Amino acid sequence: MGLRVAKFIVAQLEEAQHNVTLFDPQEMPAPLLQKPLHHYKDYKEAPKWLVEADLKLRAADAVVVVSAEYNHSIPPALSNLMDHFPLSSYAYKPSAIVCYSMGPFGGMRAAMSLRCMLGELGCISVSNIFGIPVVQNAIDPDGKPTNEYMVPGAKRLIAQLDWHAHAMATHRATAGVPN
Amino acid sequence: MGLRVAKFIVAQLEEAQHNVTLFDPQEMPAPLLQKPLHHYKDYKEAPKWLVEADLKLRAADAVVVVSAEYNHSIPPALSNLMDHFPLSSYAYKPSAIVCYSMGPFGGMRAAMSLRCMLGELGCISVSNIFGIPVVQNAIDPDGKPTNEYMVPGAKRLIAQLDWHAHAMATHRATAGVPN
Amino acid sequence: MGLRVAKFIVAQLEEAQHNVTLFDPQEMPAPLLQKPLHHYKDYKEAPKWLVEADLKLRAADAVVVVSAEYNHSIPPALSNLMDHFPLSSYAYKPSAIVCYSMGPFGGMRAAMSLRCMLGELGCISVSNIFGIPVVQNAIDPDGKPTNEYMVPGAKRLIAQLDWHAHAMATHRATAGVPN
Amino acid sequence: MGLRVAKFIVAQLEEAQHNVTLFDPQEMPAPLLQKPLHHYKDYKEAPKWLVEADLKLRAADAVVVVSAEYNHSIPPALSNLMDHFPLSSYAYKPSAIVCYSMGPFGGMRAAMSLRCMLGELGCISVSNIFGIPVVQNAIDPDGKPTNEYMVPGAKRLIAQLDWHAHAMATHRATAGVPN
Repeated sequence: MGLRVAKFIVAQLEEAQHNVTLFDPQEMPAPLLQKPLHHYKDYKEAPKWLVEADLKLRAADAVVVVSAEYNHSIPPALSNLMDHFPLSSYAYKPSAIVCYSMGPFGGMRAAMSLRCMLGELGCISVSNIFGIPVVQNAIDPDGKPTNEYMVPGAKRLIAQLDWHAHAMATHRATAGVPN
Repeated sequence: MGLRVAKFIVAQLEEAQHNVTLFDPQEMPAPLLQKPLHHYKDYKEAPKWLVEADLKLRAADAVVVVSAEYNHSIPPALSNLMDHFPLSSYAYKPSAIVCYSMGPFGGMRAAMSLRCMLGELGCISVSNIFGIPVVQNAIDPDGKPTNEYMVPGAKRLIAQLDWHAHAMATHRATAGVPN
Repeated sequence: MGLRVAKFIVAQLEEAQHNVTLFDPQEMPAPLLQKPLHHYKDYKEAPKWLVEADLKLRAADAVVVVSAEYNHSIPPALSNLMDHFPLSSYAYKPSAIVCYSMGPFGGMRAAMSLRCMLGELGCISVSNIFGIPVVQNAIDPDGKPTNEYMVPGAKRLIAQLDWHAHAMATHRATAGVPN
Repeated sequence: MGLRVAKFIVAQLEEAQHNVTLFDPQEMPAPLLQKPLHHYKDYKEAPKWLVEADLKLRAADAVVVVSAEYNHSIPPALSNLMDHFPLSSYAYKPSAIVCYSMGPFGGMRAAMSLRCMLGELGCISVSNIFGIPVVQNAIDPDGKPTNEYMVPGAKRLIAQLDWHAHAMATHRATAGVPN
C-alpha cells in the first residue's frame, strides 16, 4: 500500500512543478544496526548508495514522509532509513507527513511519533497531516486516487509545504543556518 | 517553578533584542470549558482580556511555550489557555518549547505532546527542545540561572527560533499565507 | 458530543452488569490551577465534592475515560479533573480509553497522550482503544448507537476491561499492592 | 550501551528469582521488511529462530523492554524485532520499560512511543518507567551498577511488574482470555 500512496503523492508533487526523488526503503539496502553515514570518519568508506542518497537529501528543499503504521508506531524500515542520515542533511527544511492505514484511523498514531522524530531531525513538519484511512479504497495500485478527498487533501498539504520550503530556502540562501 | 523559568527565558529573549509579551495562565482569567474566541460570532461579545491577548498573539512573530509536566502530560492550565485562540492567530509562525521538572527528566514527556499540539495549532516547533531537569537547582526564584547550562541552552534555542521567525515573517510579508 | 458518548458507554457498561459512576467535568467544580487533593495536609480542608469523588474513585475497580480531542491533545477540562486525584486512587487498576471526534480520525491522537497519562497515574489502559470517528453520526443525543460498529466495539472494550479489572481486584485482595 | 543495561536488568531479575530469556536484536536474524510470523500460513515455513523465539515469548509471564532512543523515537532494530511476533504472543501480559540515553533525559521520549506500542501489542506497560540518564556513568560494561539509583530503581520496577504478572497469570489460568 505504501508504494501506491507514494506514487499518488509523487504525481501530485510533480503536477505542482516539483522535482521529486523517491527514497523507497525496499529498494535501498539500509541494513538494520549498521552504522549511519555520520559514524564514518571518512565518507569514502561509506556505502555508495548511502553517500549518493545523502547528496540528494542535502540538495532537497523539503521532505515528504509517506508512512504506514505498525502497532501504533513508525514502521521500522522507515525509521531505520531515516536514521541513516545526519541531522545536518535534514536541518532547516520543512517536512510533510502522509500517513495511511487499511483501517479507519489513517495512521494518525504513527504520525504523532513521526512528528516528534522529524522535529528532532530538524526537518520540522508542517501543520497539516494528510491521513488516509482505508487506503485500499482511496488510491488504486497505480497511485490513481479513487475518492474525492485525495486530490484536495494533497493540494492542501503541498501548499503548506511549498510555503515553508520557500520561506526556509530563501532564508538559508541569505542568512545561512545557525551553528 | 514555571514563573522562574519564564522570567529566565524572558530575560534571555530581551537580551537578544526581542520584544516579549508574557502570557501567564495564572494571571489570565481563562476559565475551563468556556468558549474559545473563534466560537464567538461577534468578537465584541468576547471577553476583553481574550480579544486583547489575541491581538498580541497575532502581532507576534514567534511563540515560546514554557511548560511543566503533570502526569507525563501538558498542564491543563497551559493547554486550556492555548486552546482559547484560533489557529489563524498561530499559523505560519514558529514556536520554541522550554520544559522543566523538579525531577530528572526535564518535562520531556510533556514536550512530546506539546510538539504535536503546536504542530496542529500551526505554530510549528523548532528542532531544539530546551529541557530543564531539577529546575529548582537550575534557576533561582528571580529567574537567574544557577548552573552553567542555562544560558548556552537558551541561546541555542533562541538562535533557532530567530532563524525560523525571520524566514517566516519575511515570507508572510512577501507571499501572504495559503488559504 | 462527550455526553452522548458517555451515555452510550454507561448504558453498555450497565448492560454488562457494572455499577457505573459518571464523573462529568462540566458538573464537577474543579477549577484550574487550584490544588489537587493530595496537596491538602488535612483532607477536612479539601472541598467536599473532591473528597467524595475521590472516595468513589478509590472504590472503583476500573476507570473508563471518555475523551474528545482538542488540537491533537487531551481536552484540558479532562486532564484538569484527572490531575485532581492522587496516584494512589488510581493505582493498580485498569482503564479503558473511549475517544471520539466529529472528523475522521476518532480522537486517536489524543488517545496516544491519554495512554501515557493513564500509565503514569497507575491506571494502565487496556490494549483496545475504542475510537469513534464522525461521532455525530454514530451515537444520537440520547446515547443510542446509530451505526452497527458501536455495540460490538463497546463489548470488545468492556470484555478486555473486565478481564483486567477482575485480575487486578483479585490480586489486590490477596496480595495488597507494592509500596 | 544497551547490552550493559540488559545485563544489569537480567541480573536484577534473576536476583528476584525470575527465569529470564534475553532477546538481543543483534543476535537474532530478524531482517527488515521480511514477513512476521503471523503472515506465514504454515509455521513450518517460518525461520526456525522465529518459531523458537515465539515459543519463548508465549511461555513468558512478563516482558521487559530495554530501549535506547534514536532521534526521539524507538530504535528500529527494537521495533522491527517486536513487530515479528503476533499480538497473541504478547496479549494479557504486563511489560516494563527500561530506557536509557547517554545524555540527560534517559530515553523518556522513546518511552512515550514504546508505551503506545506495547499497549497495542497487548502487553500493557506498568506505571513505573525506569529511565537511565547518562547511562555510561550509571552501569559499567559488565552490567554492574555504578551509582546508588540503579538497584532501588530496578527493584521498584520489578515489584510492579511482578505484581501485574502474578495478577494476570492467575487470571489467565482461571478465566482464559477474551476472544
